[in-house]
Amino acid sequence: MSESINREALKKLSYGLYIVSSILDGKKNGQLANTVFQVTSEPPQVAISLSKNNLTHEYVEKSGIFSVSILSESTPFAFIGLFGFRSGRVIDKFEKTGHKFGISGCPIVIENAVSAIEARVVKKIDNGSHTLFIGEIINAEIFGNDRAMTYSFYQENLKGKTPKDSPTFIPLME
Amino acid sequence: MSESINREALKKLSYGLYIVSSILDGKKNGQLANTVFQVTSEPPQVAISLSKNNLTHEYVEKSGIFSVSILSESTPFAFIGLFGFRSGRVIDKFEKTGHKFGISGCPIVIENAVSAIEARVVKKIDNGSHTLFIGEIINAEIFGNDRAMTYSFYQENLKGKTPKDSPTFIPLME
Repeated sequence: MSESINREALKKLSYGLYIVSSILDGKKNGQLANTVFQVTSEPPQVAISLSKNNLTHEYVEKSGIFSVSILSESTPFAFIGLFGFRSGRVIDKFEKTGHKFGISGCPIVIENAVSAIEARVVKKIDNGSHTLFIGEIINAEIFGNDRAMTYSFYQENLKGKTPKDSPTFIPLME
Repeated sequence: MSESINREALKKLSYGLYIVSSILDGKKNGQLANTVFQVTSEPPQVAISLSKNNLTHEYVEKSGIFSVSILSESTPFAFIGLFGFRSGRVIDKFEKTGHKFGISGCPIVIENAVSAIEARVVKKIDNGSHTLFIGEIINAEIFGNDRAMTYSFYQENLKGKTPKDSPTFIPLME
C-alpha cells in the first residue's frame, strides 16, 4: 500500500472560531484562528497554532503573551472579516473593536466574545509553516451565555454570504 | 489585577470526538480523545494531546505511529463508552470493533467513523500530565458522508443518557 492523503478527510476535524491577540511595543493586533485547544488541566495550558506569515505570530513570539477570545455564534461576518481577511500591518483592527487589557497587558477582544483566555507562552514548537505556542493560562473569564461559534457553523452559515468576486474572498485559514 | 481562572470559560472551546489508536508488540489499543487538530497544511501534520496515564499514550510513544478516527454524529453511546470508559489493560477494545490496518501497521477504527487519518510521530512535547504528539500524516481517507460528532453535540445529546449511578459515570476526558 502507498500513501494516499484525501484532504477531505482532514476537513472532518472539528474546530471553534477564535480571535488570538497580542501586543508588541504598544501596538495591538489580533487574528482569526481555529486551531486552539486545551492541552492540560493542571496547570491549565492551551495550545495555539499560528502561521509564521502573520503579524500576530510575530507579536506572540516576541512578547510571549497572547489572549484567545471565543467568538459567539451570532458574530457578524463583517467582524470576522476584519480579523480574518485584513492585515494588522495595514489597519488597526482594535480601533473600533470592543476590548480591554489583561493582567499581562495583553489586549483581549470582548466584542462578540462569549469568553476569553489570557496566557503566557511556555513553549514554542516549530512545525515548519506554523508555530505551535503552548501557553500557561493566567486568566479566564466568561462574558455571556451565547453558544460558541464552531468552524463548521461558520462555514455553513456565514462563509456562503461572502461575495465570490469580493477582493476579500481568500482562504480564511490555511 | 490578580489571576482568576474561570474554568467555565475554557469549556467554551470547541472540539470534535475521536478515537486515537496505536499498536505495540502486536497489541492494539485505542482511546477516546477530543484534542486533535491539524497544525500545518504542507506537509499535512496533526497534533494530539494524550494523558500519560493512558495505555494508548504508551503505545504511541513507543511505536511512533497513531491513527485518528473521526466519529460520526450517529455513534452510539455504548461505542463511545467502550473507548472512553474502559481500559485496554483490561479488555481488547478491538475484538468486536470494525477496523483495518494502515500502511504503517497501525490499527484504524472504521466502525462509526466518517474519516480517518494515519500519522507518524515527528515531535513529542512534554506538557506535564499530557504529551502533545505531532504527527506527519501519511494516509487519510473518507468512509462516509455523515456529520462529524462534535464534543458539544456529545455532551448535549449523549452524555445525558448515562445513568448517574453507573460505574462508568466518570469524567470522560479531563
